[in-house]
Amino acid sequence: MTPKIIVFDAYGTLLNVNALDGLLEHHFGDAGTEISAIWRSKQLQYTWLRTLMERYKPFSSVTMEALDFACNSLKLKLTEPIKEELLHSYLQLEAFPEVRPVLMQLQEQAQLAVLSNADHAMLEGAINHNKLTNVFAEVLSADAIGHFKPRKEVYQLACDAFKCLPTEILFVSSNTWDVVGAKAYGFQVAWLNRFNNTPDHLGYREDLIIKELSELVVSS
Amino acid sequence: MTPKIIVFDAYGTLLNVNALDGLLEHHFGDAGTEISAIWRSKQLQYTWLRTLMERYKPFSSVTMEALDFACNSLKLKLTEPIKEELLHSYLQLEAFPEVRPVLMQLQEQAQLAVLSNADHAMLEGAINHNKLTNVFAEVLSADAIGHFKPRKEVYQLACDAFKCLPTEILFVSSNTWDVVGAKAYGFQVAWLNRFNNTPDHLGYREDLIIKELSELVVSS
Repeated sequence: MTPKIIVFDAYGTLLNVNALDGLLEHHFGDAGTEISAIWRSKQLQYTWLRTLMERYKPFSSVTMEALDFACNSLKLKLTEPIKEELLHSYLQLEAFPEVRPVLMQLQEQAQLAVLSNADHAMLEGAINHNKLTNVFAEVLSADAIGHFKPRKEVYQLACDAFKCLPTEILFVSSNTWDVVGAKAYGFQVAWLNRFNNTPDHLGYREDLIIKELSELVVSS
Repeated sequence: MTPKIIVFDAYGTLLNVNALDGLLEHHFGDAGTEISAIWRSKQLQYTWLRTLMERYKPFSSVTMEALDFACNSLKLKLTEPIKEELLHSYLQLEAFPEVRPVLMQLQEQAQLAVLSNADHAMLEGAINHNKLTNVFAEVLSADAIGHFKPRKEVYQLACDAFKCLPTEILFVSSNTWDVVGAKAYGFQVAWLNRFNNTPDHLGYREDLIIKELSELVVSS
């Protein structure tokens, strides 16, 4: 299969959600790693719960509420200046090192897009920061419909944008639950499993497992 | 407020989801506690994800899929006999010690009900095992509608059963996300916070925090 349209999840897949661990350690010492883990886990949980409750808020707000929870649960004080610094850094989250060179190659063989839970301001911030402008034909956000993944309407945004069938799209994600949701929707799915994670037991599996993004490049 | 209808969440609230820790330690040694934590966390996650994806399966199936994940993620072999023993034990999960005596008192002052994600077979098993038959006017299961909490349709089951308004019901849960979901739906909500947990940051808070169920008993 050489897909003509490749759609990427952003956070955890292109962008390194652990890129702020150093900053967290700077402010909170040894608790930094623990904050980071709780923060990410609650961020996801809150996207799911808000969608289930029909109480949507943009990803940037959910992200900060999850950070509040993480610090509260560890009895750590989160001052406004530190909170603002973390949010600001989150808007400029680092991509994994291989992302830019591999996407530059991939755009020669397929149309590329991002499909993310994040709102446009966050996505544009990260795309600009990582010099990925012009790489993507489409930057699609769950914010357009006010639900988060894995609601099928979010995945549908990609088919609407490219006027194509789900099976014509290769969706790439590192998040196991997103792999399942995308497969349940009907995409071809590649699981980018950089860190040897365990697949979810939810009745759907990826079509392809890759360890590195560069495995998607077709050699000429 | 002396509510005339009190509706309880089951798992974690009346039933001790850590009651199998001893059995897990018996089979898996020191990894038992870690299995237990991952199992519970994935069980919840899978209820949310399946509801979001519209791929409902009964709670008993989701529970076993979460156990499969927990063992896989720790590279532990889960044999069929151990799996069956754990499932069987889960169907007879122990209530917290105070539950039976307090519910016997509470049924003198209000109509009592259970509203749970679990399917009826699981709920009936646990209710019989803990000698709580006849205590509840209603045993309501998310299985009746094929969605899990915090979808509002699940909470609605209680209002339908008692033909009442949400505000006429006091809903009691130990699960912070369930407290939020129930409050967003419109119940009066008591958070039974036995273990000094951190509240969720999701825009809704309980009306009342109790440390023990007995705080609901109105002294005559």
